[in-house]
Amino acid sequence: MQTIYFDKKPRLVATGTIAGPKECAGVVGKYVDKTLTDDMFGESTYEKAECKMLTYAIRQAIRNAEAKEEDVDMLISGDLLNQIISASFAARDFDFPFLGVYGACSTLSEGIALAAALINAGYYKKIVAATGSHFSSAERQYRYPLELGNTRPPQSQWTVTGAGGFFIADMGGCNSRLAVDCATFGKVVDFGITDVNNMGAAMAPAAADTILAHLKETGRGADYYDLIVTGDLGALGSRILKDLTWEKGVEIGKKHVDCGEIVYNVIEDEFQGGSGAGCSALVFGSYLFDRLKKRELNRVLLCATGALLSTVSSGQGESIPCICHAVAIENV
Amino acid sequence: MQTIYFDKKPRLVATGTIAGPKECAGVVGKYVDKTLTDDMFGESTYEKAECKMLTYAIRQAIRNAEAKEEDVDMLISGDLLNQIISASFAARDFDFPFLGVYGACSTLSEGIALAAALINAGYYKKIVAATGSHFSSAERQYRYPLELGNTRPPQSQWTVTGAGGFFIADMGGCNSRLAVDCATFGKVVDFGITDVNNMGAAMAPAAADTILAHLKETGRGADYYDLIVTGDLGALGSRILKDLTWEKGVEIGKKHVDCGEIVYNVIEDEFQGGSGAGCSALVFGSYLFDRLKKRELNRVLLCATGALLSTVSSGQGESIPCICHAVAIENV
Repeated sequence: MQTIYFDKKPRLVATGTIAGPKECAGVVGKYVDKTLTDDMFGESTYEKAECKMLTYAIRQAIRNAEAKEEDVDMLISGDLLNQIISASFAARDFDFPFLGVYGACSTLSEGIALAAALINAGYYKKIVAATGSHFSSAERQYRYPLELGNTRPPQSQWTVTGAGGFFIADMGGCNSRLAVDCATFGKVVDFGITDVNNMGAAMAPAAADTILAHLKETGRGADYYDLIVTGDLGALGSRILKDLTWEKGVEIGKKHVDCGEIVYNVIEDEFQGGSGAGCSALVFGSYLFDRLKKRELNRVLLCATGALLSTVSSGQGESIPCICHAVAIENV
Repeated sequence: MQTIYFDKKPRLVATGTIAGPKECAGVVGKYVDKTLTDDMFGESTYEKAECKMLTYAIRQAIRNAEAKEEDVDMLISGDLLNQIISASFAARDFDFPFLGVYGACSTLSEGIALAAALINAGYYKKIVAATGSHFSSAERQYRYPLELGNTRPPQSQWTVTGAGGFFIADMGGCNSRLAVDCATFGKVVDFGITDVNNMGAAMAPAAADTILAHLKETGRGADYYDLIVTGDLGALGSRILKDLTWEKGVEIGKKHVDCGEIVYNVIEDEFQGGSGAGCSALVFGSYLFDRLKKRELNRVLLCATGALLSTVSSGQGESIPCICHAVAIENV
């Protein structure tokens, strides 16, 4: 069994979000806590800007939860940069323990699931899970220097500049009605995709694997959820996911939405949509969280997906193993 | 409180270890499951060899626990390579969920602590925690291509080529008497060290911070433990740790041993000793685990330390934030 259940119903109390100018032109614009007009955020490098965004998101989540930093028991965080430096350097600014995780763009659901698991077990009372990404730091680390002006292929996606912090607490410590119900940790799935510009196709099989396992183990149909939210499959990957689940007799089409597919309003260079650990953190942490708080949505299955490649693995001819962790969040 | 307690006493059942030729000439030589005569392990690249070692260690831990792969509920793993590709690609070979973690060389204690936490809470019954490193892949990623033949400074350490898998189970599922008693998750500590060749000096303050927090929160003296084991502080870092704890009125000198300090027999190019995520995994998983099983040791506090830098952060003038997670392992 991949699924674990949280009988004490730990609560998702608050989020803190920050986004770049391109992102704020889209659906998340009016929900984020802070809009950047300059994606350098006053720093001298993209990496430092990314770290500063993540630090902001963590601090803002604590603030929005009306908690104090000294009340927080742990930070669970990771990001896309080598050695997750955004998370590690952000953690340096806080006086609570740090659990570094790596799941590429699946970090959001991995972090929330782990936080809920540790709180539900009674180990800790208040944990912040956080992740983020930055277009320019990701582009130069994973692909080419921006200065090169490379053409992007039509199957590519655009790494989201943004970060989200998620404040999770035991039910006694808050008045939130939004509970983390259960989580399904995913297996690594590799369908042999080697095109590093086609993350959606690589990640869709992992999303299908975890979603199908979740529905089977919990005995729930797709209809149980108001939304089944994937992280950053993009338009192409989302179609592949729907096909793959449909082939197994599960119709998720009407319930499915992909954060990467909806994050940008106008499709220019983004082609298949947004990607990056910040994509789901931003869309779920602002727009969808707002709808959950207003009870326009009541049951959401959050399935962030990650492509576990590196430039070295791709350079050595390896295909792209992927993973998806699912976490069910419900109004109770 | 940073410390969490495991009242159900999850067990460390078995380990699986593999090491390169240089490592096997040392103290771990007669305890490891597999000795490599060629550190390429039949692969075409160092990275693939590292991944293959990790896969071997995971599989061997399951074998040594006399369990079957289909019984395993989860793999918790991470390593030093960008995007932890050794762990992710190793996970691809197994049909159970994967939780990717990043804590640099603190991965061993982070993984064991998390595994014990998830088992103690009743979520899962059998988890493998694993990590490893490879001298040649680390050297070319973090420092210089080996072909360059750079001179190494005297404060440097030598990344261990080796991997260890740790099979952790609920007490009902095995007859092991070795329990994971509690864990103290560390905070990120940065004393401003910027010399990337002096990891011991950077990590020692993090080790001191976590060890002191652990002893204070548990109310235990250093004498409670037969050994307080750090991961890869090396000779210099170990001296700094002893000074830092002594300044706080805690004498750990007689109880302390550092895996990096003891892993190599003869000091040639290794200078301060071994390092890398594989260092503590190898020494603890083979030599120290054997002594625990034979009850020559009964209470060990395992404190793996990690330096959370990247080549990018160092290149941008940042100092080195570090972390240490501690996990108490006892014969019951």
